[in-house]
Amino acid sequence: MSGHHETPAGTPEVTRMLAEWVVGLDGSDIPDEVRREGLRTFVNWVGCAVGGARHETVDAALRAVMPFSGERNATVLGRPERLDPLHAALLNGITSHVLDYDDTHLKTIIHPAGPVASALLALSEIRPMSGEDFLTALIIGVEVECRIGNSVYPHHYDRGWHITGTSGVFGAAAAVGKAIGLDRQRMQWALGLAATQSSGLREMFGTMTKSFHPGRAAQNGMMSALMAEAGFDSSERALEAPRGFATVMSDKQDWSEILDDLGTRWEAALNSYKPFACGIVIHPAIDGCQQIRTEIGNRVAEIASVQLTTHPLVLELTGKRTPRTGLEGKFSVFHAAAVALLQGDGAPTAFTDEVVTNPQVIDLRDRINATADPACHEASVTIRVTFKDGSTLDKHIERAIGSSEVPLTDEQIDDKFTVQSALVIGEAATEQLLRMAWETPRSADISEIARCSSQNAVSA
Amino acid sequence: MSGHHETPAGTPEVTRMLAEWVVGLDGSDIPDEVRREGLRTFVNWVGCAVGGARHETVDAALRAVMPFSGERNATVLGRPERLDPLHAALLNGITSHVLDYDDTHLKTIIHPAGPVASALLALSEIRPMSGEDFLTALIIGVEVECRIGNSVYPHHYDRGWHITGTSGVFGAAAAVGKAIGLDRQRMQWALGLAATQSSGLREMFGTMTKSFHPGRAAQNGMMSALMAEAGFDSSERALEAPRGFATVMSDKQDWSEILDDLGTRWEAALNSYKPFACGIVIHPAIDGCQQIRTEIGNRVAEIASVQLTTHPLVLELTGKRTPRTGLEGKFSVFHAAAVALLQGDGAPTAFTDEVVTNPQVIDLRDRINATADPACHEASVTIRVTFKDGSTLDKHIERAIGSSEVPLTDEQIDDKFTVQSALVIGEAATEQLLRMAWETPRSADISEIARCSSQNAVSA
Repeated sequence: MSGHHETPAGTPEVTRMLAEWVVGLDGSDIPDEVRREGLRTFVNWVGCAVGGARHETVDAALRAVMPFSGERNATVLGRPERLDPLHAALLNGITSHVLDYDDTHLKTIIHPAGPVASALLALSEIRPMSGEDFLTALIIGVEVECRIGNSVYPHHYDRGWHITGTSGVFGAAAAVGKAIGLDRQRMQWALGLAATQSSGLREMFGTMTKSFHPGRAAQNGMMSALMAEAGFDSSERALEAPRGFATVMSDKQDWSEILDDLGTRWEAALNSYKPFACGIVIHPAIDGCQQIRTEIGNRVAEIASVQLTTHPLVLELTGKRTPRTGLEGKFSVFHAAAVALLQGDGAPTAFTDEVVTNPQVIDLRDRINATADPACHEASVTIRVTFKDGSTLDKHIERAIGSSEVPLTDEQIDDKFTVQSALVIGEAATEQLLRMAWETPRSADISEIARCSSQNAVSA
Repeated sequence: MSGHHETPAGTPEVTRMLAEWVVGLDGSDIPDEVRREGLRTFVNWVGCAVGGARHETVDAALRAVMPFSGERNATVLGRPERLDPLHAALLNGITSHVLDYDDTHLKTIIHPAGPVASALLALSEIRPMSGEDFLTALIIGVEVECRIGNSVYPHHYDRGWHITGTSGVFGAAAAVGKAIGLDRQRMQWALGLAATQSSGLREMFGTMTKSFHPGRAAQNGMMSALMAEAGFDSSERALEAPRGFATVMSDKQDWSEILDDLGTRWEAALNSYKPFACGIVIHPAIDGCQQIRTEIGNRVAEIASVQLTTHPLVLELTGKRTPRTGLEGKFSVFHAAAVALLQGDGAPTAFTDEVVTNPQVIDLRDRINATADPACHEASVTIRVTFKDGSTLDKHIERAIGSSEVPLTDEQIDDKFTVQSALVIGEAATEQLLRMAWETPRSADISEIARCSSQNAVSA
């Protein structure tokens, strides 16, 4: 039963104003450089979705949902199975996140593309749209998701919410709502339906359920927009109401993060792409070790010991000394550094059970030590290698590759795409898919990309 | 990325212990009086689901989901449309709550049956089960849901969570998990998947999205159990972990409410059934006005004014002086009292747009006043009627019908069922359905009830 809970005086009509902006925006209002970053976001996402398609997490999810699928007119990227668009959105959200290799909005640690692109591409298979319209909706969805994330971060994340799920559902709802042409009021309902489904706990990290979060956010956000379209009403102030999303799920509510500079400041332009398939705090160490490997060549065999100096958070989050599985390897800076030195690898192939239990990797891993230094920036690392002859080599990484200061180039995105995708659908199909992804702005029917990704796919 | 967040020393393994109890319980371990209350819970729920089946909220939800339905082997009670079991669970959760006429666990204001029975009955259409096994799983689901609710109530509800949704998803997961025979570890995963989908904001009250909550809880809880069955893993301590459900979504965590006296103290035996189709705080006023009407007969036309003395909460929640729609009428103690005096009605028929705008109702409504008295118990009311000749009549209701002190009799549950259901599927089908519902313990295939509810149904 509803009580009298008034919004504090001075609170802007956040939901209405945001919905109005989304509904009113034309694709041509988005600056070229933002559209360009949206395209990079999409290309990177396609590679990750195909790359993760054969993971056992995906097999388990498919076993559960297949008996309940509606008309199978949408694609699970990189797989032969087809599903109805809602379930395809769920699955593509899982595949694109399951290798921890996707994109990152660094201010909030949101992985933006998973919820938004998974929903939009599945939708495009029943409601055809051009590549340009797809990119417009994708950028809007990412913008909404990251702005809502900004408004409650860090308190919301610190409380234990997996912000990719909790914010992602808004992004998916806004993107799908834009693509299907909701009016302002129905866009507010879509955001309301998204708010009331916002969920996902960080407690799930380390289990299959982590990648369930962007998947379910995609599916639930898409459903929110479709229900609003069908006339299912909801609160029209779900973000700012005293019992709305921001107050119930966070102690911080900064409305200016959502409303200020709409259309001029673009969070969607700040997206970054992981060069390595693990949590971002290990990236400087991997980057540095890869550079050392390139410099020293065969002398890798002569390493006696390695000393890392990192921010304390790195050891808090990834201080696992003796990982036993590929998944645990992602939480071990020692394992990651050893594989980077021995094999130059930071891709998903560096975090398999086989590599983690390889005796040569274990031997080097156990000779790597780390010191936490609060004076060291989170995005930096200092590495000292001591060789068996007593000589040393020092390497300092001020900012790792993939950070906003050292973004991945288009060519590096290509390489990342190819390495992942070729293992799943082969090199020829990968080459065709990658070309098609970059051609998105000229596509008359974006759903062709989904079907292209599965042409060579076989069941796991 | 996961950090090192340890559970405080002394925290019991709540999720594991609860899962173990659910998995190990045999139907014969449940006392007869608890099974009897489970049966009343189910009968009341069937009547509410059929009664709400033609509501516009249901039409809108069906428009949205029909294009995405899988194989249509499950029933939307009281409707001709069929859906896959996951979507049927969603719809039946909506129908059974949409008239605010369902059951209530008074300690937490959870409406227990919606999430649990909606999931279980839909499941029974693809995985046949007897009426006895159905009741066992239903009672377990309600028990899990209410105990988890107790552990975080009232803080969790006060923060703004709609506890029927947030706790209901656990009840649905436990009930479906029991029915499909999950082992202990998979039951823990099912509870983990439920925890990470726990959602639903009180901000949605007054909109269609309120009844979406028990529906989505049913659907998501069912999905949680089916994913766990398929080997999709999750946290095994989702309730008690530092970033688990109870700590993230509440400042209160009382594990004893979940674990103490399992199998001897039964929250499922405390369920109550609303005699009137509105929030529970108005029930004493309706009960009293109905009794006055019975006592004074035609003198209702001679009422000059009515004075209600209630707890302040009644006016805070239902103090709307001039409701304009049926839905707003549910938040007006003045309207509810007027209809009870004039028509003796507190059923959904008392809260239609037509009745709320009836001039005769408005005329009496405007002559009803109310005084808030903190000394008056929330479940009590004192009513003074002043007639045009200056004479007065006083009526005090210490506890309203439907409270735990004055529970509905089986005959009153029958009447409530019949009044609702006959409007939707006619009297003959209603009589058959009601008889069949009470016969549940002797049913070899509980899903027959679902199909019986739709035999006469026509599209809205």
